[in-house]
Amino acid sequence: MAGTASDAPIRLALHGGAGELPREAGPPTAQRAALREIAAETLAALRAGASALDAVTLAVERLEDCPLFNAGVGAVLHRDGGVELDAAVMRGADRAYGGVCGVSRVRHPVRLARRLCEAGGPVLVQGAGAEALAREHGLELVSPAHFITPLRQAQLERAQRRGVVVLDHDLAPPAEPVDESGFGTVGAVARDAQGRLAAATSTGGLTNKRPGRIGDTPIAGAGTWADDRSLAVSCTGTGESFLRAAVAHQLHARVLWGGQSLALACEATFEDVAALGGHGGAIVIDREGRIALPYNSGVLFRAWVEADGEIRVAVGKD
Amino acid sequence: MAGTASDAPIRLALHGGAGELPREAGPPTAQRAALREIAAETLAALRAGASALDAVTLAVERLEDCPLFNAGVGAVLHRDGGVELDAAVMRGADRAYGGVCGVSRVRHPVRLARRLCEAGGPVLVQGAGAEALAREHGLELVSPAHFITPLRQAQLERAQRRGVVVLDHDLAPPAEPVDESGFGTVGAVARDAQGRLAAATSTGGLTNKRPGRIGDTPIAGAGTWADDRSLAVSCTGTGESFLRAAVAHQLHARVLWGGQSLALACEATFEDVAALGGHGGAIVIDREGRIALPYNSGVLFRAWVEADGEIRVAVGKD
Repeated sequence: MAGTASDAPIRLALHGGAGELPREAGPPTAQRAALREIAAETLAALRAGASALDAVTLAVERLEDCPLFNAGVGAVLHRDGGVELDAAVMRGADRAYGGVCGVSRVRHPVRLARRLCEAGGPVLVQGAGAEALAREHGLELVSPAHFITPLRQAQLERAQRRGVVVLDHDLAPPAEPVDESGFGTVGAVARDAQGRLAAATSTGGLTNKRPGRIGDTPIAGAGTWADDRSLAVSCTGTGESFLRAAVAHQLHARVLWGGQSLALACEATFEDVAALGGHGGAIVIDREGRIALPYNSGVLFRAWVEADGEIRVAVGKD
Repeated sequence: MAGTASDAPIRLALHGGAGELPREAGPPTAQRAALREIAAETLAALRAGASALDAVTLAVERLEDCPLFNAGVGAVLHRDGGVELDAAVMRGADRAYGGVCGVSRVRHPVRLARRLCEAGGPVLVQGAGAEALAREHGLELVSPAHFITPLRQAQLERAQRRGVVVLDHDLAPPAEPVDESGFGTVGAVARDAQGRLAAATSTGGLTNKRPGRIGDTPIAGAGTWADDRSLAVSCTGTGESFLRAAVAHQLHARVLWGGQSLALACEATFEDVAALGGHGGAIVIDREGRIALPYNSGVLFRAWVEADGEIRVAVGKD
């Protein structure tokens, strides 16, 4: 259906995290396939008339269920061996927003974030109170064990032996290779058939993180932002510097008030992130349907669909 | 010392919340006096060479200890009768930032936020993990009862009888007047003798709020922001709309990338807040030392010091 008039406005981009892959890691074939499959399902939904908000929620829900990425099942473990999940959703038409921090029993944190967009109460919630809200909304709750995989347990053990807090894709010292199945934060941005934008992001954060730590993911303007006047963006990277740079809102602001091109806004924003010592990436779709996939780390796991309707997948400079 | 060359760069503004005062409330004499006293102490510190970061931390710490405002002692109560405190600090020179959400045992949440600015670990933390970090930093911990005052208990009972979640200064229905001692979120912005900027904010949130709810206060770019290239700002109001509007970063962005005057940036940003159904206010000091104190609610409790070194205090259009 690519290229027909009715499909023209549709755009989609997904990410599965950013960081540095160890040289000895094999090609991330499974992750590429998962991104492609989830992009295809989300694209089909958009073509069937799904809103951008529904599409990004669907994509991130699928990525949360996929153990290859650091969100939902397969999330990285904090230093006490558990998970604390963060997620956010934002709709560009009215900046309806929901953010969820530090939940360990909500099967799909992005779905709770989505409910907050429309519930009319708090928009940003954390911990046990967030889980109580999920219960009231009838969302599926699970045991924290639901999210924990042997791979992440092994990664935590290695991180604790080395005494470090690591971004999920980061390179291990040569003597101790990181398992190549370390994978990142997930996110989606979409432009629907009506030209509306939305963004969603979900993560388990950092391996061996301190319980209670919140990164940029669930925060409107840091890891997630959507405004139909400018762009939709989902970020992944060193959350602390992304918060200090307000990366998502900085991109929006440079375009909307600064009159900068999308390319210049991306370049300047990631220079700013780098100046704060940060690294990572972002997926962006602007109001005209332009897609930008900037990153200043070694890789950004990504899939995207431009005007021709083809699904493209890339990891590094490929 | 006002007007001497060495004092020229120093500027200071404090707020004690925004909202609607009931018509039957008497003049808020005690709050005015407290704002004036804390402004005087903070101004003296700035004149003695304190950094902007030290000054805003000091001011907010004093405001947290003052039971007249909704932060620290005298914070409003959530629907289960406890307190959950949020705070943030940001330094304009390097955007060092610390944010704290949902703590009930840290005597001075702003001091924990300040530690996060410089500790090199997580910058945004919540709940029990945040309290554990405070303990590790040697900060004072107290029983949650330390923060609870009879006034706030009575306000919670009234709010629960009426079944509403209320902004701390908001007008009650005529039949049931809100106690005139309902007071708001606190914040400070400063420009020090070296022309450096900083901002800090602290709050108990909304009376009868759901536990786990986070407002704009602790979030960089929403309720708190400082950048020496543009301005320092601390906000107070309906947190949900301030998050959706990214009020603090919007002000920064309009000035830095949009080239807007401070006055225009304030006007446009509060129009945006109003369009999202929000109300409240902000205190702003820009890099040139200009002060703006915009609000679209009935009152904004505020004190400020301009180039003449005089402390001014105001509540409404006075």
